[in-house]
Amino acid sequence: MTDYFANIPAIKYEGEGSTNEFAFRYYNPDEVILGKRMEDHLRFAIAWWHSFAYTGGDPFGGQTYERPWFGDSIEAAKMKADVAFEMFDILGAPFFCFHDADIRPEGKTFAETTKNLETIVDHIGQRMESSKTKLLWGTANLFSHRRFMAGAATNPDPEIFAYSAATVKTCMDATLKLGGANYVLWGGREGYETLLNTDLTRESENAGRFLQMVVDYKYKIGFKGTILIEPKPQEPTKHQYDFDVATVYGFLKRFGLENEVKVNIEQGHAILAGHSFEHELALAASLGILGSIDMNRNDYQSGWDTDQFPNNHGEMALAFYEVLKSGGFTNGGTNFDARLRRQSLDAEDLILAHVGGMDTCARALKSAAKLLEDGALEKARADRYAGWETPEAKAMLGSSLDDIYADVVAKNLDPQPVSGRQERLENLWNRFL
Amino acid sequence: MTDYFANIPAIKYEGEGSTNEFAFRYYNPDEVILGKRMEDHLRFAIAWWHSFAYTGGDPFGGQTYERPWFGDSIEAAKMKADVAFEMFDILGAPFFCFHDADIRPEGKTFAETTKNLETIVDHIGQRMESSKTKLLWGTANLFSHRRFMAGAATNPDPEIFAYSAATVKTCMDATLKLGGANYVLWGGREGYETLLNTDLTRESENAGRFLQMVVDYKYKIGFKGTILIEPKPQEPTKHQYDFDVATVYGFLKRFGLENEVKVNIEQGHAILAGHSFEHELALAASLGILGSIDMNRNDYQSGWDTDQFPNNHGEMALAFYEVLKSGGFTNGGTNFDARLRRQSLDAEDLILAHVGGMDTCARALKSAAKLLEDGALEKARADRYAGWETPEAKAMLGSSLDDIYADVVAKNLDPQPVSGRQERLENLWNRFL
Amino acid sequence: MTDYFANIPAIKYEGEGSTNEFAFRYYNPDEVILGKRMEDHLRFAIAWWHSFAYTGGDPFGGQTYERPWFGDSIEAAKMKADVAFEMFDILGAPFFCFHDADIRPEGKTFAETTKNLETIVDHIGQRMESSKTKLLWGTANLFSHRRFMAGAATNPDPEIFAYSAATVKTCMDATLKLGGANYVLWGGREGYETLLNTDLTRESENAGRFLQMVVDYKYKIGFKGTILIEPKPQEPTKHQYDFDVATVYGFLKRFGLENEVKVNIEQGHAILAGHSFEHELALAASLGILGSIDMNRNDYQSGWDTDQFPNNHGEMALAFYEVLKSGGFTNGGTNFDARLRRQSLDAEDLILAHVGGMDTCARALKSAAKLLEDGALEKARADRYAGWETPEAKAMLGSSLDDIYADVVAKNLDPQPVSGRQERLENLWNRFL
Amino acid sequence: MTDYFANIPAIKYEGEGSTNEFAFRYYNPDEVILGKRMEDHLRFAIAWWHSFAYTGGDPFGGQTYERPWFGDSIEAAKMKADVAFEMFDILGAPFFCFHDADIRPEGKTFAETTKNLETIVDHIGQRMESSKTKLLWGTANLFSHRRFMAGAATNPDPEIFAYSAATVKTCMDATLKLGGANYVLWGGREGYETLLNTDLTRESENAGRFLQMVVDYKYKIGFKGTILIEPKPQEPTKHQYDFDVATVYGFLKRFGLENEVKVNIEQGHAILAGHSFEHELALAASLGILGSIDMNRNDYQSGWDTDQFPNNHGEMALAFYEVLKSGGFTNGGTNFDARLRRQSLDAEDLILAHVGGMDTCARALKSAAKLLEDGALEKARADRYAGWETPEAKAMLGSSLDDIYADVVAKNLDPQPVSGRQERLENLWNRFL
Repeated sequence: MTDYFANIPAIKYEGEGSTNEFAFRYYNPDEVILGKRMEDHLRFAIAWWHSFAYTGGDPFGGQTYERPWFGDSIEAAKMKADVAFEMFDILGAPFFCFHDADIRPEGKTFAETTKNLETIVDHIGQRMESSKTKLLWGTANLFSHRRFMAGAATNPDPEIFAYSAATVKTCMDATLKLGGANYVLWGGREGYETLLNTDLTRESENAGRFLQMVVDYKYKIGFKGTILIEPKPQEPTKHQYDFDVATVYGFLKRFGLENEVKVNIEQGHAILAGHSFEHELALAASLGILGSIDMNRNDYQSGWDTDQFPNNHGEMALAFYEVLKSGGFTNGGTNFDARLRRQSLDAEDLILAHVGGMDTCARALKSAAKLLEDGALEKARADRYAGWETPEAKAMLGSSLDDIYADVVAKNLDPQPVSGRQERLENLWNRFL
Repeated sequence: MTDYFANIPAIKYEGEGSTNEFAFRYYNPDEVILGKRMEDHLRFAIAWWHSFAYTGGDPFGGQTYERPWFGDSIEAAKMKADVAFEMFDILGAPFFCFHDADIRPEGKTFAETTKNLETIVDHIGQRMESSKTKLLWGTANLFSHRRFMAGAATNPDPEIFAYSAATVKTCMDATLKLGGANYVLWGGREGYETLLNTDLTRESENAGRFLQMVVDYKYKIGFKGTILIEPKPQEPTKHQYDFDVATVYGFLKRFGLENEVKVNIEQGHAILAGHSFEHELALAASLGILGSIDMNRNDYQSGWDTDQFPNNHGEMALAFYEVLKSGGFTNGGTNFDARLRRQSLDAEDLILAHVGGMDTCARALKSAAKLLEDGALEKARADRYAGWETPEAKAMLGSSLDDIYADVVAKNLDPQPVSGRQERLENLWNRFL
Repeated sequence: MTDYFANIPAIKYEGEGSTNEFAFRYYNPDEVILGKRMEDHLRFAIAWWHSFAYTGGDPFGGQTYERPWFGDSIEAAKMKADVAFEMFDILGAPFFCFHDADIRPEGKTFAETTKNLETIVDHIGQRMESSKTKLLWGTANLFSHRRFMAGAATNPDPEIFAYSAATVKTCMDATLKLGGANYVLWGGREGYETLLNTDLTRESENAGRFLQMVVDYKYKIGFKGTILIEPKPQEPTKHQYDFDVATVYGFLKRFGLENEVKVNIEQGHAILAGHSFEHELALAASLGILGSIDMNRNDYQSGWDTDQFPNNHGEMALAFYEVLKSGGFTNGGTNFDARLRRQSLDAEDLILAHVGGMDTCARALKSAAKLLEDGALEKARADRYAGWETPEAKAMLGSSLDDIYADVVAKNLDPQPVSGRQERLENLWNRFL
Repeated sequence: MTDYFANIPAIKYEGEGSTNEFAFRYYNPDEVILGKRMEDHLRFAIAWWHSFAYTGGDPFGGQTYERPWFGDSIEAAKMKADVAFEMFDILGAPFFCFHDADIRPEGKTFAETTKNLETIVDHIGQRMESSKTKLLWGTANLFSHRRFMAGAATNPDPEIFAYSAATVKTCMDATLKLGGANYVLWGGREGYETLLNTDLTRESENAGRFLQMVVDYKYKIGFKGTILIEPKPQEPTKHQYDFDVATVYGFLKRFGLENEVKVNIEQGHAILAGHSFEHELALAASLGILGSIDMNRNDYQSGWDTDQFPNNHGEMALAFYEVLKSGGFTNGGTNFDARLRRQSLDAEDLILAHVGGMDTCARALKSAAKLLEDGALEKARADRYAGWETPEAKAMLGSSLDDIYADVVAKNLDPQPVSGRQERLENLWNRFL
């Protein structure tokens, strides 16, 4: 046992009235909400990269954190894993997520890198035996190393495609071995810096082929989890091919993969793409591809990915309402793709940031569930579209422009608008926050 | 003949050296570029709405223009048409575009509105007999009247769907009658203000059905033109369903219409969606759905649709390069969806704004054509992806993750990045501007 | 009495548990918060323009509302005023705000316009005699009419400067007559569309001179209220001179008016300028120029002024915390510069939007007050800067670079960073929401 | 001599027709423009940080460049300097700029760091003896090291203020020693991440005091150059105190330093602040504080500082027109605060990026100069404001609201708007590109 979190107690639920920093005020894992335990609704995951691998750097400054496990050795990687599981215990986190590069040192060769991965996967597997924390998803980091600077699956160089494909194979193996519920693809470098040197058609066809191989391999190895794509519009590239949910849907349809792959939606990425988080969730649910969420917060005045911990339960309730309305998570969950501010140096900061994020989500879930149970919002929505339930309306949808034209003329139709009642519905919403 | 443009001469090509405000310095219709007349490349169109119907209003102020043809009568509408054709003659514009609401007064009933449309269509038809200016596209205004405030094809009220469908039928008839090369759908109100009162699934299914009806009707009446959707992300709504090219592509695939419908891409809408104009063009070309363009400029610091005339030929060259690379326009063209600033009150302003816009595009086209002819950029692009032309690379694309993995290990692959040469290519580009 | 709000009851406080749409759940005017009645803290005002003059138009569509008082006559203007006071009574609104153009019809001449203003001011004055609602501020609309298209105080035409100055004189007179607590200047057209035709130096000097005249006239007529400038970055212009609080401060300093004029800060304008609302409030308080607030909400994904009613109390609490910390309003107040969505057609919508907005603010105020009373946040802030309270630190501020250099070398100073504790403070904040 | 640029020739002017990548097509140092050599107009500087210290990292990836001089030793730093001067020679760069941290390795103590700085300054001084390249400005890096994570002059910890002040002293000494024409302050960390832990008043007062010390020290050591502040709105912080030109002006006025300090304006920072580059230049010129420019380009669709090389001469011409109109640079110059894309790995890329940037600026300068010489734009501007030159207009500016009111009524003034002619002026502008 490391002593990194010495003196930090396990976090327990104490209720709204608690003033204890080291307690949950809303997150009560066993509390039943809409017939399901809160823990099973939210399925919180801790992200290895932000919590254990991020050093505090930003584009204008270097490392600010001093963590005893920083370093490139297997020993450091094991210590990092040990600390991670200590944190999972403190928080009672049911899940974690990782990239290969977060958990293992890079080797000198592909083979050595793979061996390092296997060594650490074994180590993590051992830790999992004595832990209640499971793997929500694994993924491959195909963006940090300079070899990926021009993309992985969409690289102009076939050797890098090959290197990427081989890496994904090892990460899918690792995810399977650790019992992961999903496997994620984040195309951080799958995009371009300038159209001048880019062949959009070839790159997207290669990306489609790559994804098909991932799906094929899933079946080959008997992985039962869900394959997820994480949309993002830009940063680090000028343009990323997985811009947003609608773009990913079109990509999946193009390659016939819309029943094989779902999306992992991040709040910050939604914002950078010009959408609200709840829009992306609602759209994915409507298209049948809502898989999982990366929970964080993007500063509304910053044009880059700020990855902050969520702290506004009113906003998050809009998100969880969409999740609940879609039936809730199956394989998916709520992964904190959120990192400490670089000035938050202390072990306490790391724990308390998650406590705050978990409580914000729990509070939001409870509000969303109450509103859904109440039914008033869904009734108002249904009433607004009630006209479409008539036989005449259904018949019209099956007819043609000229038939409808004849009908409009015959009836001298002059439809009158009715109030959309937005503010009333916002007030209704606020009653449940 | 009206005397609105009295004293303004027909605009002729005088070459780069000209200092005559009322002359083209680059646009030389008969000049042959890449084997085609410049006029046939650019296929400029004048937009009825901005040039003849816009009054100068903005969200904080009312009408600034005083045009003799403003008013709601048939007479005013005829005068507007007469002025329009005088302007087309002055500019030598080969095409124009219109919405129904631009050209006819609204009637008291649907039937009267339709009759008004037919009356003005006949009038315009007569004017076209003695003019060289043709119709690039017609469209229906399904957004200005209060009945459309909650959408047309996506309205919660089936009667408004019906009214919209009937209106589109009359506008397709009008477009056919006037020999239009395309028919456009712009979903200005097809979106939402708040998710709280919106049924995304139903609205998008209705939109898909509506579009199918439009395609069916096209075949029924023997319209040979192209059906175009114009993407736009937002404004007037918070979110529009036709957000950008990728979103429209997904929508078309979803409803099996990707071979029936193309896109009409606007510079300003690309910018509001977080893309460069050339990105949207390149993507549409890559997906096989590039139809036509709405030429304008969006101020980069303004978050709304500024619809300015283009004035930076360097930027426009990037756009025309994509158009040329895709093979150039067939039915499509370059419609000036650009309006005078509201302080530009004079008849001269209206003419000269178009002169500047046409010259900017012509200059851009010439630069783009020279670079394409030169071949250096395409050669650099091909070289960058040359690895993919090898049999090994092609074989790899047909293999699997585990086969590739075995190969990477066997070869101890360690691919090295090569320079993307962005700045060199930008310099190359600049040689042709 | 009009019957526009027939069947809508006066809104009363019923407490958090109430499910009555037509009741306050948080706004309890007589409840004492930090030693002051809630009504006296918040000083809510209703904006004449949005509530009674806005027709539902937007850049892509016209009027959607059908109000019996719409029209250009004195009678319509009186009816509008009567309805306004009925609404003030229903809401128990302590204040209202107006532009001249909201309350009176434009006349054929300046004199007639002034006479119309005086007539309606008299009418409003009579209504105020039997009402508890007072005037928070008046202002002149120097942006809607075409004469102001190129600015008012910054117009290239001195006659328009004159017309604007004369108009402001009449509006200040009206504000004085109605007992207004402030007089506001909103420079909606004081800016430019293009630098190409703009003389920045002359325009800003004229603006400075104009403001001085306003201050002089205030003293001349014995107006005891505060002169306020409302910052806004753009829209309708490309650039507005009153971009944000910092810009207005520089302008005031330049013309020596920083002790005469304060700012009226709007949430939506802060967002459009790239700031959070609380930033603008905190900065103005720090600079000693915080006057009043225009309460609304700007959609974070829309790049124009959306002027929605606030509905997120967590965000608003951050704003009211700054107001409370600065000592609270003196002359200023909370003006709802918020308008119904254009689809919200009904009288009920108008009332309930304000109910929701007032409740959101009241809830926010209560949270902010509790946190301020608790003192934990201010203690954390004071602790963070405690080093500056030492004599050494104060002495250092009075010394010089080379003295400090000598000291750093002598002490071999190697200062270590300490945690900024952002997430912990966010958690603390959330305890009070 | 290093052989890093072996085989790359010195870049010469060959004229527009040249197709030689390694030649200038517009930049002709000795060509006389408006009575001054082009080199003396543009005063190009190479930035040490981007060209020699940037490793190719971004927020999602590490080093991509492999430069022989990377490392933390004095030897590496000397090699870096040697390569730098070789590049200056190849480009014929008249100036360079640096931060202390770019040129020297950090020491274990402040004293050692200072000694390292002095060692390298001596080395650079020697190189300058045999070079024509001079120092445009020096500056201190008070943002990269973790000690500055919460600010330098605005840090909550007085010891960090002290460390920063001492560092600036050493950098001003170095700048003086190397004959620098300016000294720059860039407040990269002078701002905040969250208002919750920030004391705006104290921080800004300390910043004012710090700046006063810098000015005092300038006089003390007899530095004749200009002190410059570089505005930036955000990134790395959520908010930076030097948001934009207007904000800096207000800050200078507040502390009485508006005649002592000017601004160094960067294109990318202007864009991030919501302004055009030419706006910031024009405003600074109008306020008398235009000092120097940091030349680069910000991608319009990216919300972070992209620092690309400029490549659109049409846009840059708008910038240089403002510089020329203000009288041109005195101490200031055109510093390329632009970095290679991280995929541009080669030595050739580094040279050619600068060649392209210099040519873009030279071409822009020539266009701007021609238009200024032509006089048509300035005449149009003067005509637009001609009314203000009449005695009546001048008298009005000296009068009062009530006098003006009386005059407006007496004359029954009804001013009519005139066209702003924006598009015509844009066409005029384009004639000179």
